[in-house]
Amino acid sequence: MVESSEEKKRISESTIHRLSIYYRALSLLEKEKHETISSKELAKREKLTPAQVRKDLSFFGSFGTRGLGYNVVELKQKIAGILGINRQWRVALIGLGNIGSALVSYKEFVRQGFNIMKLFDNDQRKIGSNHKGIIVSDIKNLESELKEANIEIVIIAVPATVAQYIVDNVVEAGVKAILNFAPINLRVPPDVYLRNENMSMELEYLSFAMVNNHTPKRVKI
Amino acid sequence: MVESSEEKKRISESTIHRLSIYYRALSLLEKEKHETISSKELAKREKLTPAQVRKDLSFFGSFGTRGLGYNVVELKQKIAGILGINRQWRVALIGLGNIGSALVSYKEFVRQGFNIMKLFDNDQRKIGSNHKGIIVSDIKNLESELKEANIEIVIIAVPATVAQYIVDNVVEAGVKAILNFAPINLRVPPDVYLRNENMSMELEYLSFAMVNNHTPKRVKI
Repeated sequence: MVESSEEKKRISESTIHRLSIYYRALSLLEKEKHETISSKELAKREKLTPAQVRKDLSFFGSFGTRGLGYNVVELKQKIAGILGINRQWRVALIGLGNIGSALVSYKEFVRQGFNIMKLFDNDQRKIGSNHKGIIVSDIKNLESELKEANIEIVIIAVPATVAQYIVDNVVEAGVKAILNFAPINLRVPPDVYLRNENMSMELEYLSFAMVNNHTPKRVKI
Repeated sequence: MVESSEEKKRISESTIHRLSIYYRALSLLEKEKHETISSKELAKREKLTPAQVRKDLSFFGSFGTRGLGYNVVELKQKIAGILGINRQWRVALIGLGNIGSALVSYKEFVRQGFNIMKLFDNDQRKIGSNHKGIIVSDIKNLESELKEANIEIVIIAVPATVAQYIVDNVVEAGVKAILNFAPINLRVPPDVYLRNENMSMELEYLSFAMVNNHTPKRVKI
């Protein structure tokens, strides 16, 4: 785990994203029966520099054995611990429109330990129906049901117009982590973690790159 | 537009994302009938510092009038030009699984000028069917149909196992911009722009933050 608060501040968003990438690479290496991997090989697979890989991993103490590289299983487990995906998370999803419905069956979530246990909507035709094994709850009971189910992470997939109202209720229920798909800048208290996902902005990055002949940079996966 | 190659190098990924955010804020301000906005107000709305806003906008020449701030419509149009969303883009989507199907009706794409004109799948039950007004094409004809339709951007929503093969074909067809939803690190030639979208990684950022009590930072929207 992270050692000191000094250390904490130095971990950038891109380092965290690269840890996610290393985790996936190591999962694949484990399947392919590799026992060890050097920072050089790992870097080559992910098109990074060996120095970058060594720097990223050094944040979390020393793993590697000189000459032999890293033990694949051990490094994978260590990164899982750092990312907090060596455990199961209780997730609720609010809003069963196109994106929300698609996310319910997004296999990568379950694979990484993010288990959607509750679904909420305000549509009477959806409330009470069985959606991939989960009975859809009435948004009216959001606060009490989030508390009752000990939900730790909430995914917001409601229209932008109601997103702030919904988020206020989620925060009121004591949830500390929110992933927002509504195209709006939400306000949350400083002790709540918020991430925003807007697929159109990724396309805007591409159109920017094409219009300006911008050098491609693969910082995000 | 960007002035020199010197200038180009200095535009970071986060600046581009913030431009997308400003564009959305300005669209809303326009709807609310605001004629001008100061960097201070814009910063406050988006929870940034006025210095940051001024710095971002200064990359692209001087817009503001001292004391009056920026003209909302003018600034919005200027940013649209920079981001390349003052025009329409011809987009194709490959893979009509859960995520792919949801993206076809993602309104934000159309709103920003990204028009999905072609859909591809390998499922015989889907090929030839009408999906939101578009006849689904056979993936076998990918290369010729991408060329014929002058597709400029491709969205990949196929399983990870086939994604590299599909992308090779997309590149072969001359497409220079790809948004990838498959959870895999794809290889493309240096002249092709690639962005990856992995919703699970955003959840991993949240779990990392919770496990390590990491200071929330709202760098991405």
